[in-house]
Amino acid sequence: MSTSRIRKEVDEALLGFVDRQRPALLTISDDLAPLLSALDALLGGGKRLRPAFCYWGWRAAGGEDSPGIVAAAASLELLQASALVHDDVMDSSDTRRGQPSAHRRFEALHRAQGWPGDAEAFGGGAAILLGDLCLAWSSEMFETCGLDAGPRRRGRAVYDLMRTEVMCGQYLDMLEGTRGEATVATALRVVEYKSAKYTIERPLHLGAVLAGARPDVTAALTGYGLPLGIAFQLRDDVLGVFGDPAETGKPAGDDLREGKRTVLIALTLERASAAQADAVLRRLGDPALDRPGVDELRTIIEETGGLAACEAMIERYLREAERSLAAAPVTAEAREALGELAVAATTRSM
Amino acid sequence: MSTSRIRKEVDEALLGFVDRQRPALLTISDDLAPLLSALDALLGGGKRLRPAFCYWGWRAAGGEDSPGIVAAAASLELLQASALVHDDVMDSSDTRRGQPSAHRRFEALHRAQGWPGDAEAFGGGAAILLGDLCLAWSSEMFETCGLDAGPRRRGRAVYDLMRTEVMCGQYLDMLEGTRGEATVATALRVVEYKSAKYTIERPLHLGAVLAGARPDVTAALTGYGLPLGIAFQLRDDVLGVFGDPAETGKPAGDDLREGKRTVLIALTLERASAAQADAVLRRLGDPALDRPGVDELRTIIEETGGLAACEAMIERYLREAERSLAAAPVTAEAREALGELAVAATTRSM
Repeated sequence: MSTSRIRKEVDEALLGFVDRQRPALLTISDDLAPLLSALDALLGGGKRLRPAFCYWGWRAAGGEDSPGIVAAAASLELLQASALVHDDVMDSSDTRRGQPSAHRRFEALHRAQGWPGDAEAFGGGAAILLGDLCLAWSSEMFETCGLDAGPRRRGRAVYDLMRTEVMCGQYLDMLEGTRGEATVATALRVVEYKSAKYTIERPLHLGAVLAGARPDVTAALTGYGLPLGIAFQLRDDVLGVFGDPAETGKPAGDDLREGKRTVLIALTLERASAAQADAVLRRLGDPALDRPGVDELRTIIEETGGLAACEAMIERYLREAERSLAAAPVTAEAREALGELAVAATTRSM
Repeated sequence: MSTSRIRKEVDEALLGFVDRQRPALLTISDDLAPLLSALDALLGGGKRLRPAFCYWGWRAAGGEDSPGIVAAAASLELLQASALVHDDVMDSSDTRRGQPSAHRRFEALHRAQGWPGDAEAFGGGAAILLGDLCLAWSSEMFETCGLDAGPRRRGRAVYDLMRTEVMCGQYLDMLEGTRGEATVATALRVVEYKSAKYTIERPLHLGAVLAGARPDVTAALTGYGLPLGIAFQLRDDVLGVFGDPAETGKPAGDDLREGKRTVLIALTLERASAAQADAVLRRLGDPALDRPGVDELRTIIEETGGLAACEAMIERYLREAERSLAAAPVTAEAREALGELAVAATTRSM
């Protein structure tokens, strides 16, 4: 299948699954409709990157097109929805995919209805529950994808590992942010678990083991997926500071306001003068950081050479991924598709 | 197996599962140890009520003792751990099972380490992730319980339904609290989904369908479990206002401070004079509610007849459960155990 065709089929499987849940919720109570509309809004965006890697992991290992792999791949999008909704609560983010974040949506509903309770507490609580529902539904969708029990058992081991890794990675990410001590090495460890494995390596492995991949194939997919995943997250970090809001779906400099201790920031601090480091540490994580403040930080990140160092790292990891892909024991078709995905994942926000 | 024997085997299965996860986390990073110790502390308490109902649903349907059903039943305790951790974040509760709630533990860790970031935000975020981990692990433990794929497939349908129901029930609970309009009827709807189905009916069904129960057996378990579950929650509501902190593991009157719109409160407001209703609505949900305030509310709940009406409802639902149990097509041993569980679930906090 072509990339656009996969995306279309993943969307159909995903929205079909949610549509099958809809009546059960509305039978319990019409009051549950806002949970569904918040999920609809969230799933309206997103590039379906993880499903694409899962699908191509399957094809790379010789799997044939089937509705089962599409549904299994699409279930990753519900896992990602859960992570995004909870992440936005943890970071107090206002926007996601160019729209209000889930907790802000529920907060707005509360205000619009004029309910007497605490709107912010309601928004946060409702978003926690929506994220829980997405997490529960992701495994439900995976288990009911229609693939046989044997492949599903093998796939489940990857799925379980991936969930534990991403949750641990997010904890470490938050820890680095609050501890304020991130070095390039500790920031890279967060990238590995929170992002590189979760976004690329494990989705590839999931598809591959579902197709019964030999160990040399999964190893080759790690050789390609892990460095690509790091390059992907470093690109995301750069876009989080320098990206076009129309493209990222987040206000300019949002990562700076949230105080994220990214590799980009660690590279900058390594290279900063005392005065520059002081300015970065003073402004990073200031929720009221305005446009001139963002511009000042951008200038420091550029002038120290932090940005150039980060771009060089992206380039290096991307080349490593490409070399591994060139040598990987996969079909020509999969090699071509994975090469295209590598470019797409590292040249813009996905 | 005897009740104490089941509890011991469930504990062993549960703690064994967590112990098998431990090295994976600590290999990622030693910094993840606080997630494990928060989980250990939480799992140190609790009456294993849901596993007990699941086990007796299995036995009621003719299942034989096996490690598989014990592991499947124990997995419900991880689902419950997830719900408790997230519930405490949503309610800003300080305590759980007589100890600091998970988010307060992480907050205390943050303060003790003197990290520069926001301790409260870290506590809430870490608890959201711990709850996510417990939710992911509950399905992992269920799927790897060792029972055959066929029974597991049947059980998964109940498991999935139960998760959706409890999350929706919790949303409705929060909605009633913030909307401040709960009637006895709307409060009972919350009880049904958040509590009666989740705590008793679905665990019974899960065990029963894993054992291949006939439809008349699952129907009989509903006849027993649903009214018992309502009685259980109403007893919990009464203990939330009048209970002994040593028994409930929560400070006296915590439900009042959190502003829970329980059936007990709805029954009180139905019977209250204008002045009494005004006093209840003014004090309910006040986080600073002190002991004299709690005592004033207790007096109103008693004097209006709200408490007596709630006790009468508990009695009525309990009798209904007992009648259904007496007529249920289950083994004599299961009937006796379920009769004991009914008493245990409604006479004290579990």
